[in-house]
Amino acid sequence: MYSNGHIFVGEVIGTAILILFGAGVCAAVTLHHSKAKAAGWVAIAFGWGMGVLAGAYTAAPLSGGHLNPAVTVGSAVAGGTEWSKVPLYIAAQMVGAAIGAVLAWALYYAQFAANDGRSGVTPQPTLGIFSTGPEIRRPVANLVTEIIATVGLVLPLLFFGENKGIGIGRVPGEHAGVYGSGINVLLVALLVVGIGLSLGGPTGYAINPARDLGPRLVHALLPIPNKGSPDWSYAWIPVAGPLIGAVLSGLVYAAAF
Amino acid sequence: MYSNGHIFVGEVIGTAILILFGAGVCAAVTLHHSKAKAAGWVAIAFGWGMGVLAGAYTAAPLSGGHLNPAVTVGSAVAGGTEWSKVPLYIAAQMVGAAIGAVLAWALYYAQFAANDGRSGVTPQPTLGIFSTGPEIRRPVANLVTEIIATVGLVLPLLFFGENKGIGIGRVPGEHAGVYGSGINVLLVALLVVGIGLSLGGPTGYAINPARDLGPRLVHALLPIPNKGSPDWSYAWIPVAGPLIGAVLSGLVYAAAF
Amino acid sequence: MYSNGHIFVGEVIGTAILILFGAGVCAAVTLHHSKAKAAGWVAIAFGWGMGVLAGAYTAAPLSGGHLNPAVTVGSAVAGGTEWSKVPLYIAAQMVGAAIGAVLAWALYYAQFAANDGRSGVTPQPTLGIFSTGPEIRRPVANLVTEIIATVGLVLPLLFFGENKGIGIGRVPGEHAGVYGSGINVLLVALLVVGIGLSLGGPTGYAINPARDLGPRLVHALLPIPNKGSPDWSYAWIPVAGPLIGAVLSGLVYAAAF
Amino acid sequence: MYSNGHIFVGEVIGTAILILFGAGVCAAVTLHHSKAKAAGWVAIAFGWGMGVLAGAYTAAPLSGGHLNPAVTVGSAVAGGTEWSKVPLYIAAQMVGAAIGAVLAWALYYAQFAANDGRSGVTPQPTLGIFSTGPEIRRPVANLVTEIIATVGLVLPLLFFGENKGIGIGRVPGEHAGVYGSGINVLLVALLVVGIGLSLGGPTGYAINPARDLGPRLVHALLPIPNKGSPDWSYAWIPVAGPLIGAVLSGLVYAAAF
Repeated sequence: MYSNGHIFVGEVIGTAILILFGAGVCAAVTLHHSKAKAAGWVAIAFGWGMGVLAGAYTAAPLSGGHLNPAVTVGSAVAGGTEWSKVPLYIAAQMVGAAIGAVLAWALYYAQFAANDGRSGVTPQPTLGIFSTGPEIRRPVANLVTEIIATVGLVLPLLFFGENKGIGIGRVPGEHAGVYGSGINVLLVALLVVGIGLSLGGPTGYAINPARDLGPRLVHALLPIPNKGSPDWSYAWIPVAGPLIGAVLSGLVYAAAF
Repeated sequence: MYSNGHIFVGEVIGTAILILFGAGVCAAVTLHHSKAKAAGWVAIAFGWGMGVLAGAYTAAPLSGGHLNPAVTVGSAVAGGTEWSKVPLYIAAQMVGAAIGAVLAWALYYAQFAANDGRSGVTPQPTLGIFSTGPEIRRPVANLVTEIIATVGLVLPLLFFGENKGIGIGRVPGEHAGVYGSGINVLLVALLVVGIGLSLGGPTGYAINPARDLGPRLVHALLPIPNKGSPDWSYAWIPVAGPLIGAVLSGLVYAAAF
Repeated sequence: MYSNGHIFVGEVIGTAILILFGAGVCAAVTLHHSKAKAAGWVAIAFGWGMGVLAGAYTAAPLSGGHLNPAVTVGSAVAGGTEWSKVPLYIAAQMVGAAIGAVLAWALYYAQFAANDGRSGVTPQPTLGIFSTGPEIRRPVANLVTEIIATVGLVLPLLFFGENKGIGIGRVPGEHAGVYGSGINVLLVALLVVGIGLSLGGPTGYAINPARDLGPRLVHALLPIPNKGSPDWSYAWIPVAGPLIGAVLSGLVYAAAF
Repeated sequence: MYSNGHIFVGEVIGTAILILFGAGVCAAVTLHHSKAKAAGWVAIAFGWGMGVLAGAYTAAPLSGGHLNPAVTVGSAVAGGTEWSKVPLYIAAQMVGAAIGAVLAWALYYAQFAANDGRSGVTPQPTLGIFSTGPEIRRPVANLVTEIIATVGLVLPLLFFGENKGIGIGRVPGEHAGVYGSGINVLLVALLVVGIGLSLGGPTGYAINPARDLGPRLVHALLPIPNKGSPDWSYAWIPVAGPLIGAVLSGLVYAAAF
């Protein structure tokens, strides 16, 4: 069993690392005066995937390394996490996501500052570095996209838990299982690479309410020049879609055995 | 031994996930208004490979995670799967492939809908998102391509089974072996990345009858605007080639020891 | 201990698979009417690396999976392979490399046939699909490049053998070690990805005499239209360089403990 | 416990391999007459990452495979390395980094020689192949970038040590742990891929004082035509930033349990 303190610390640190890498790679390929400018979608997919590897392996011995309310909820539906712990996980994930977004901004501070229109660079909106948005704005279609993409994350992840009992599935509090052989977090990281490549085209694959909402809040507060709109009207979709997908995944998982 | 129910459920879910990722990445790099538009062949190869990882690790504890009639037949020739189970495997793989194609279409619904010629985007044929086709249409050469490419999948995969007894080789029903250390499915996923990069140039590497036929049927039925021809005259090649390659692989494997 | 028959069969099959993938990816990104046309150097590096994964895991239970005279010689210098077995390994690797080159040609048959100048495509030399050549022709510099690049392969590979005794290092005939945990071949595959990216720029990283000489012979014999020169004057460098690098690696390894 | 001799030899060899691959990939994508010319940032990130894999697995059985003063200092702060060994580690890392830079130059000798302005190629500065530099020169921002990016390396790396006790964390001299299952070095290699993609945009991710300072010295001494300035005014940042980041990581790690 993870202690409440360890859960909180682990999820804060792990989610902060995830978002540092994830917002970081979006900054890297988007912002002017970045060496990775225009490195493309393969770079983005691997940047986020390796962010999962970095964050989840860090958090694994403390909290199991969920880093995502959809993972926590999916695990709870599947019986792998106690419902009483869910609010603590989600709160820590939100705090961590916000910290990670601030760290990514600090790391790319000079590049964000050069977005002021006075540095010979055309200013550009920066919301897409922090949170997701649709290429075609159709709320129902966008919600369906996020639901299916999240099933593509949480359903395999629950089954990975059957892989020698390592993962977030079934047995509540099986501490050793989570970071036992180490391979399962690597699998999830590569799974997230694949989700980015395959399922991210329409909406940018939030698949994680904390990943989207925390950085969106931070972006609204940070003093970034010409940062553009926070697009609050879209913000409910990357929260609702992943949570619905998580519940569906837990139900399918429970029915499969 | 896997139960018939578990085989069916595992192969349906696993193949559906595989095709969701595989058709998904083809949609991602092909369709307009996708963030991954023009991400290129490396993205496609990794998208399909990580689809194998996602689908096969999910199905592994239920059915062994074949997801491909060529894998099932190759395993049967090699003595790793009972012939009496082969029809069940293949039926489930076909059902799963069709479900996966529908999920990929639903996930990219807004992008497919924008193919109507009224959204400022030039309509384009969409069959290539669902099933394979040759760059140069020469049936014998195309068949040879699919045979060799499938040997490039099934022969290594059978030998991977010698890697501490994990995989689809030799011992029928050795349940623990299939998802024992977890590494073997990862190896197959990376193998499929390599097949895409190295062997996919001429025909788009079906190497799996269900992967091609199921989505081709779904594409013919779905209400996609300007979707173009289902190209039924080519459809026998990605069925026959992989099955021939599978039999050859099983025979070489059996002769090597 | 591997039997002579198993060594021969394993090295033939494994090296054939390696070259099928390696020549295959070069064909894929080079030839017209290939879906992977112009996929670039990252595709080439991963195609060769996953070819190592496919071929070496296949050969591992039969022969240890050397697939490369430089690996065999380096292992012999380090004490991991008996010198009396070295000629058998090398002969099998040459046979396998030639078979693999023929398979890659057969898989891309329609594309090679379209190089006839009558298919609306400008004919192009095809030697680079089969064997290596320098960007700047300076024999001493090219030789040094191949020596250092091979040290970049064989020296780490020998040390990987210390990783729980898995690999080609030290203990002759330690059968279990070679394909024990499975991770070591994966590491070598990723190492070859890195060699391609980092060390392949000047000469195309032969780092393997069989990989270069076998396909060069096959290319000279195959009926490919407009195939250009076999460049025999360069052919000694990708043989000599890797063998020198292998001996140096074995000596450094032996001195390090 | 590692002997002093093994520590020195392991860190020299391992760091030399790391820099051979790292400077190598920068040469590969930068220099004219390289087959990998313009292969882009994804190639650079994987080249450096696989350099970590190659170098750290080689050094692991001798020294633990730090290859980086920031890793050594972070480990010392966390209690995993004795402070009395730190100077030996750092000295060996500097020697190894210099040797690796010379090897990369020798491997790309013909390409560097062609930078003389007489070979039909426009000469270009070559410092960026050997050491890092900022896209926007703002010392405080650049320092912050290197601090955070190093935390992104060392903090996860310390926690990876909790993954079955493998890594550089906590227990001093736990020899078996370092190269036990082999998976941890692979994780660090993939982590470095992610750091390159996500955190390398502003300054080129030194995250390692030896990686930057050793090759910078070698570049200043080598007879490369038109090589440009060594930019000594920037050189303190990729030394100070990583060391500060390492200390912060060790403190966070120690506080988390």
